[in-house]
Amino acid sequence: MLNCDMGAKKASLPSANSKDEERMAALVAFTAKTLETSRPVPFGALIVNSKTGERLLRAVNAVAVENDPSSHAELRAVRLACKQLKQVSLAGYTIYTTCEPCAMCMADALWARLDRVVYGATIADASKHCLQIHIPARTVAARSDMPCIVDGPVLRKQCYALFTHPNMIAAFALWSNRKPAKAGGT
Amino acid sequence: MLNCDMGAKKASLPSANSKDEERMAALVAFTAKTLETSRPVPFGALIVNSKTGERLLRAVNAVAVENDPSSHAELRAVRLACKQLKQVSLAGYTIYTTCEPCAMCMADALWARLDRVVYGATIADASKHCLQIHIPARTVAARSDMPCIVDGPVLRKQCYALFTHPNMIAAFALWSNRKPAKAGGT
Repeated sequence: MLNCDMGAKKASLPSANSKDEERMAALVAFTAKTLETSRPVPFGALIVNSKTGERLLRAVNAVAVENDPSSHAELRAVRLACKQLKQVSLAGYTIYTTCEPCAMCMADALWARLDRVVYGATIADASKHCLQIHIPARTVAARSDMPCIVDGPVLRKQCYALFTHPNMIAAFALWSNRKPAKAGGT
Repeated sequence: MLNCDMGAKKASLPSANSKDEERMAALVAFTAKTLETSRPVPFGALIVNSKTGERLLRAVNAVAVENDPSSHAELRAVRLACKQLKQVSLAGYTIYTTCEPCAMCMADALWARLDRVVYGATIADASKHCLQIHIPARTVAARSDMPCIVDGPVLRKQCYALFTHPNMIAAFALWSNRKPAKAGGT
């Protein structure tokens, strides 16, 4: 068993605050709307101006809809934001995500120069339901030449509830990256 | 200084072979064509059928052209391949890339279920010219629930020559993620 901590540093200031909780709660509500559709996903992302808090845009995971394994909520949000702003840099912006970004999404946040990443549920939480890459977002940031603050978990319980909603549990069973049943399980 | 090795495992069999060198040489030639354009890039990727070797498609880095920080050669190639095949899985395919995939691209290769990743120059090579995320591709693969063979470096010298071409050196000076000159340097 490898040590997954890999020397991850503690998040730098500013740490999570009440504004973060407010924005995450709204993002959970936005993401939860998918649970009543034919394509439920527990992954949603929101990009805001770091100073003013003004919302730039929101996105949910669309891997199946777009036939694109990179269409995670965070990477899609970054892609759409850059297209909207007609620039490759999101310096001055913060991303909120209902789940700790995987190595792909965290690296993309770094390449995009986002100021800060704030996440809800953890990779370990998501790992109970679907296959994962076990590298903490803070570790990816710590190994990068490009700075980015990583904060979380924020409203972990509310974010994790997206994963355990009955419609989501039913949907996970159809995912190609579902977590296989344990030996001896059903 | 963090230890960048992070317990990376040796590549599994099958190891790199003469077919790999042949394909990498052709990919270097393909990527080198960009050096004579207004948008030179040292990053090219090729996806082939793992069994037959038949080429599916090739792509180069298009971050600046597409205003998308995720438009690295490998991630673009995977995205285009999935769109072409109308499926999210590239199981049965191998990707060749002129440079070791960053954490974003390696994680995307894992989500896409690619059988194998074969790279040329290393992240350390690229780091001499532009900002990087210092996590070896093999480490990302080793931490994943999804298996993928990582082989390289293959034709490292030829691949690194893409980075040191005079047109590329001139272009790097204009990149937003260029490597800053060392203290005392010019």
